[in-house]
Amino acid sequence: MPQISLSRRLRRTPFSEGVEAAGVKGYTVYNRMLLPTVFESVEADYHHLKKNVQVWDVSCERQVELRGPDAARLMQMLTPRDLRGMLPGQCFYVPIVDETGGMLNDPVAVKLSEDRWWISIADSDLLLWVKGLANGYRLDVLVDEPDVSPLGVQGPKADELMARVFGDRVRDIRFFKFDMFEFEGRDLAVARSGYSKQGGFEIYVEGSDIGMHLWNALFSAGEDLDVRAGCPNLIERIEGGLLSYGNDMTDDNTPHECGLGKFCNTHTAIGCVGRDALLRVAKEGPVQQIRPIAIDGDAVPPCVQPWPVFAGGKQVGQVTSAAWSPDFSTNVSIGMVKLSHWDAGTKVEVETPDGMRGATVQGQFWI
Amino acid sequence: MPQISLSRRLRRTPFSEGVEAAGVKGYTVYNRMLLPTVFESVEADYHHLKKNVQVWDVSCERQVELRGPDAARLMQMLTPRDLRGMLPGQCFYVPIVDETGGMLNDPVAVKLSEDRWWISIADSDLLLWVKGLANGYRLDVLVDEPDVSPLGVQGPKADELMARVFGDRVRDIRFFKFDMFEFEGRDLAVARSGYSKQGGFEIYVEGSDIGMHLWNALFSAGEDLDVRAGCPNLIERIEGGLLSYGNDMTDDNTPHECGLGKFCNTHTAIGCVGRDALLRVAKEGPVQQIRPIAIDGDAVPPCVQPWPVFAGGKQVGQVTSAAWSPDFSTNVSIGMVKLSHWDAGTKVEVETPDGMRGATVQGQFWI
Repeated sequence: MPQISLSRRLRRTPFSEGVEAAGVKGYTVYNRMLLPTVFESVEADYHHLKKNVQVWDVSCERQVELRGPDAARLMQMLTPRDLRGMLPGQCFYVPIVDETGGMLNDPVAVKLSEDRWWISIADSDLLLWVKGLANGYRLDVLVDEPDVSPLGVQGPKADELMARVFGDRVRDIRFFKFDMFEFEGRDLAVARSGYSKQGGFEIYVEGSDIGMHLWNALFSAGEDLDVRAGCPNLIERIEGGLLSYGNDMTDDNTPHECGLGKFCNTHTAIGCVGRDALLRVAKEGPVQQIRPIAIDGDAVPPCVQPWPVFAGGKQVGQVTSAAWSPDFSTNVSIGMVKLSHWDAGTKVEVETPDGMRGATVQGQFWI
Repeated sequence: MPQISLSRRLRRTPFSEGVEAAGVKGYTVYNRMLLPTVFESVEADYHHLKKNVQVWDVSCERQVELRGPDAARLMQMLTPRDLRGMLPGQCFYVPIVDETGGMLNDPVAVKLSEDRWWISIADSDLLLWVKGLANGYRLDVLVDEPDVSPLGVQGPKADELMARVFGDRVRDIRFFKFDMFEFEGRDLAVARSGYSKQGGFEIYVEGSDIGMHLWNALFSAGEDLDVRAGCPNLIERIEGGLLSYGNDMTDDNTPHECGLGKFCNTHTAIGCVGRDALLRVAKEGPVQQIRPIAIDGDAVPPCVQPWPVFAGGKQVGQVTSAAWSPDFSTNVSIGMVKLSHWDAGTKVEVETPDGMRGATVQGQFWI
């Protein structure tokens, strides 16, 4: 496997020092920033995540900040999810679409106040799209990337660890809500969210200077909890059906194809630039959609480009993320499958790099 | 050094198969696509590039295509370089700026015809900025990323190799001009350009399906020229003063700070969205600027984050790219230095990870 060549362009994070001290073995690049992918091994990291608690450097979830009188209007221009009922203190998972209804990102929007929002982005320079719209529509809003780096605390012991550092009040945060907590005299937004199904929090660390202080505080407080450095885990996220922008969907796909129709209120999302393009697909439904697919046989090799899915000799979809699941003793995968073959139980074939495999479309992810 | 974890999100290229067969040892990620960084070793690759000819997979220089009646107007909105005199068949290096005059990219614009342009981009999702502006200003133009992957042919024997594949007419292409050449029945734009100072071409390979055919044709034709797979070379590009967006400049910098004032005609670039912001700096000049800096001592370690530059105990700049140059027997580097200390011959100190080093601001790059 080739090495990664580091340079300033692949940005380090406020926690890189801790990540390196913890013995990171693999990196990917996400929003032009380093994102760890493996510490002990993907499988060992997976087992640990499901039993204990991990601290994740997810600084690469960069924030796009909207600030000013037109912030809410601009936010609604970006997404077909109706944001009128959203209150400060809430986080919404929002599909972001272009004027054709193609997905540009699938971030979490954080409403700090009526005129101040953070968009915690997946892997595309969403900042440029938002700045372009703000400029073109002459909106009264500032758009930039603040010095905010999310730190994930994920796993079944996350509540216990967080309570030791931030106090018992963190236990009261409800799912996809956030509240403010003090650390070293600074107020930080702490949300109950994260890119795993094991529960936990994301701390929006404002100010790189306190990054390693917080990292160290979490590790000191959690020694007896076997807290470890971790990262989004390929196996666990596929089991849980957590999509990855750029892997499982691109700007070729509508939110509906990605199974995100439930986060769209296309009819009432007045102002969304992709609304017209999405009205028909919202009404009639997509012709292909994301599906969990179990792939037969031994552990599949890494999926580094789409694997075609066939039925009766014709291509009916593709697999874009796949891994062997130790807990479910099968290859779990995420694919995009045509309407004709997306029903649970449908038998298909997947062309992997080491040959054709039998596979079965699933009714739900492995949770 | 950690490994790179591959996934669909880090896009493979039409030439990845050839790159892997040639034994690529290191990758970086550029525009969410794989870019090789080393084959034999950075130093061996450097010596070979300066004597022979290399084929470079620079597919990561993605194209943003503008097509339609407003294409030229939109192109001028992006840059303070006056494009009125530009003819079809020309390539222009164009700083791209936002409304504050901050650099968003430093691509090569390729004018295919009056209403059709390619922008061959550096490492930022410029597509999103351009699409956002086109949408906001309601321009009559299509903006997308076509299936075009540049293949570089660089080195002193590039003319000979290219003539064997495309015919002697390629020798007539002048610097930063392009012409159309046939390969397997397809017309490809071939430009005399590239990210080295050793001379050569970039072939805009339209259609991924012919990628490996062309790769193989170049290697077959060049066996006696010792043609090898190569890539932009860190040492050679620093010697030559070729800037890297994200390394040597970011959206914090104006084109003038980057030494790109000569590519700005701010006064006459009517329509450029950053024009107002740049008028003053264009007139008065920047307060800091890119400079070559020779750093004393043995080979410096890799520069993965900015190294502060000091004079008299005060910070007067930073170094963002650095490497040992075998040919010039010094550490060559690119830095941003304040007005007070940017004159050639100025002695400064650079704080590298292994200690403070003496250094000297240079009057010109090592060419």
